[in-house]
Amino acid sequence: MITIKDIANRLGIAPSTVSKGLNDANDISPELKKLVLDTAIEMGYVTKRMKKETRKRLCIFVENMQYEMPGDFGFDIILGFKQAAVRDNWEVIIVPMTPLLQLHDPYDRYMVKNNFHGGFLIGFALKDPWITQLASTTIPTVLFDNYIRKNPNVAYVGTDSFEGIDLAVDHLTKLGHTKIALLNGSPDSMVTVNRYDAYASSMQSHELEIDEKLVAYGHYVEDSAKYHLPTLIKNGATAILCGNDLLAVGVIRECERLHIRIPQELSVVGFDNLPIAEEISPALTTISQNRIDLGRNSYASLYWLIAKVPISRSLLRPSLIVRSSTGTHMAMDKTKNG
Amino acid sequence: MITIKDIANRLGIAPSTVSKGLNDANDISPELKKLVLDTAIEMGYVTKRMKKETRKRLCIFVENMQYEMPGDFGFDIILGFKQAAVRDNWEVIIVPMTPLLQLHDPYDRYMVKNNFHGGFLIGFALKDPWITQLASTTIPTVLFDNYIRKNPNVAYVGTDSFEGIDLAVDHLTKLGHTKIALLNGSPDSMVTVNRYDAYASSMQSHELEIDEKLVAYGHYVEDSAKYHLPTLIKNGATAILCGNDLLAVGVIRECERLHIRIPQELSVVGFDNLPIAEEISPALTTISQNRIDLGRNSYASLYWLIAKVPISRSLLRPSLIVRSSTGTHMAMDKTKNG
Repeated sequence: MITIKDIANRLGIAPSTVSKGLNDANDISPELKKLVLDTAIEMGYVTKRMKKETRKRLCIFVENMQYEMPGDFGFDIILGFKQAAVRDNWEVIIVPMTPLLQLHDPYDRYMVKNNFHGGFLIGFALKDPWITQLASTTIPTVLFDNYIRKNPNVAYVGTDSFEGIDLAVDHLTKLGHTKIALLNGSPDSMVTVNRYDAYASSMQSHELEIDEKLVAYGHYVEDSAKYHLPTLIKNGATAILCGNDLLAVGVIRECERLHIRIPQELSVVGFDNLPIAEEISPALTTISQNRIDLGRNSYASLYWLIAKVPISRSLLRPSLIVRSSTGTHMAMDKTKNG
Repeated sequence: MITIKDIANRLGIAPSTVSKGLNDANDISPELKKLVLDTAIEMGYVTKRMKKETRKRLCIFVENMQYEMPGDFGFDIILGFKQAAVRDNWEVIIVPMTPLLQLHDPYDRYMVKNNFHGGFLIGFALKDPWITQLASTTIPTVLFDNYIRKNPNVAYVGTDSFEGIDLAVDHLTKLGHTKIALLNGSPDSMVTVNRYDAYASSMQSHELEIDEKLVAYGHYVEDSAKYHLPTLIKNGATAILCGNDLLAVGVIRECERLHIRIPQELSVVGFDNLPIAEEISPALTTISQNRIDLGRNSYASLYWLIAKVPISRSLLRPSLIVRSSTGTHMAMDKTKNG
């Protein structure tokens, strides 16, 4: 049980001063009052008055995404968000979400009812009820990988797809590839559209032909790869850029089944740098999003939205992690080809 | 002259506790120590030890831009930056810059020599020596309206041109305009390229033809307007989107000279919402960038770069300020046309 004396000892001030801080006395500075309260909360001391006060609360809503275990895509995003938010003394609540739950309460009503000052939405689909409602929400809201037009209360955070894809095309062309395919995710997602645009723009800037027969759309799951792989190879692909790591893992596993050697017969690049990218054999070359930083940047954007700064989008730079799934194609390797 | 007693009174603690804080004693908490020091600095108290310490410093470099008077484009950007930075106890120095000065010291050497932890550059041209050097700088740096590829130490902040131009095209099409011209700025600027792309994309989404005869490039100064206005009107323009307010002011003044009535014979839209947009007659409809918010967002991006979060770009939403320079064209107005 924490006492006033414990707080006084911790701060190196008199217990009477701590009392003043906790009881909102006038002969103590606002700054010291804040410090006494912060320390009391941190040490778990609760006054009657504090029990009545509600802390400032933010909510993270998670849908279609694993987040509970280290290594899950959402885990580090949430961790980074919480680490940054706690310094400003926000309470952060995590709420798993489904389309059905969204039908129960409109977004704004849910937020007001639960006394949330701002929301961070990850993993939502474009056709979710709440995403539609965000066009006119008055609640400061940050969306991961989704963009809402013309509402100054909503910001989009994510990774700069253009720069990520360009790093990968750069790497593959330096290895001699020209027939670079794109195995993309679901066509109804903004990220999918961005990644296609990035692919087209990067191929063009590398003076490579954009061949629509080398572009396929599936879903962001491993199983999706096997339907498209044979066609892409038949159409001449020597390298495949995948919309995410799960698709790339699907390609690697299907190649194993079909006895296609990676990277000698096919180079594969993922997107996300999930733990599986390192564990699979051959280890996956992939475009890395730092998910702790994504979380920190999401909190920062929400902080500024709450302060009425109309952040539209805030994107991070990705990096390319080169592992064993990319290399020179054997047809280009003259020593083996002779 | 500020004394230890003054600080003690302000904080509501004993002078002996203030002394402990100022002298880095061990029997006082780090939090209270920080509060004592912050308050001492704020009140102007300087200890011998503090004299030796250098405060954390950021630098704002300004080129090609007025910033000293309220109303100048750079004034509010710098003000917003300083307001946000001071809360984290940064010292902010303003340095006017020229290409010649940039030849004297490379950017990184200048920053290290002057003990700056980060830089914010506004108004620089793409061919400036320092802009070239930013491709490989190790100093956290934020650029206003300029983008450097692939360096995680540099972030781009600005306004979402796409959304701004789209608001203007929306407004003009609702007034009945279809022949909407673009009078853009210097072709060697990234903002110019963005604004053309935004114009093309918005015209397309409004199902309007993109007629290259209705697109002109000048410079971001008033004088540039008169060379292009007659051609744009001859080619059928009933409305002109201008790359900034100065170009729009040039169009309005040239129309006055040529007895072209605004908005009956020509609608004009600016970009920036400078004070002159309100003062000129007719008052200018324009796309507004909130410059205080641009400054705050620039500081926030620099803060995160210094914390090693690789912000790539962070953009704000603009708004459209409708004034008297836009309206229905008389040829579309059936009551006048009969």
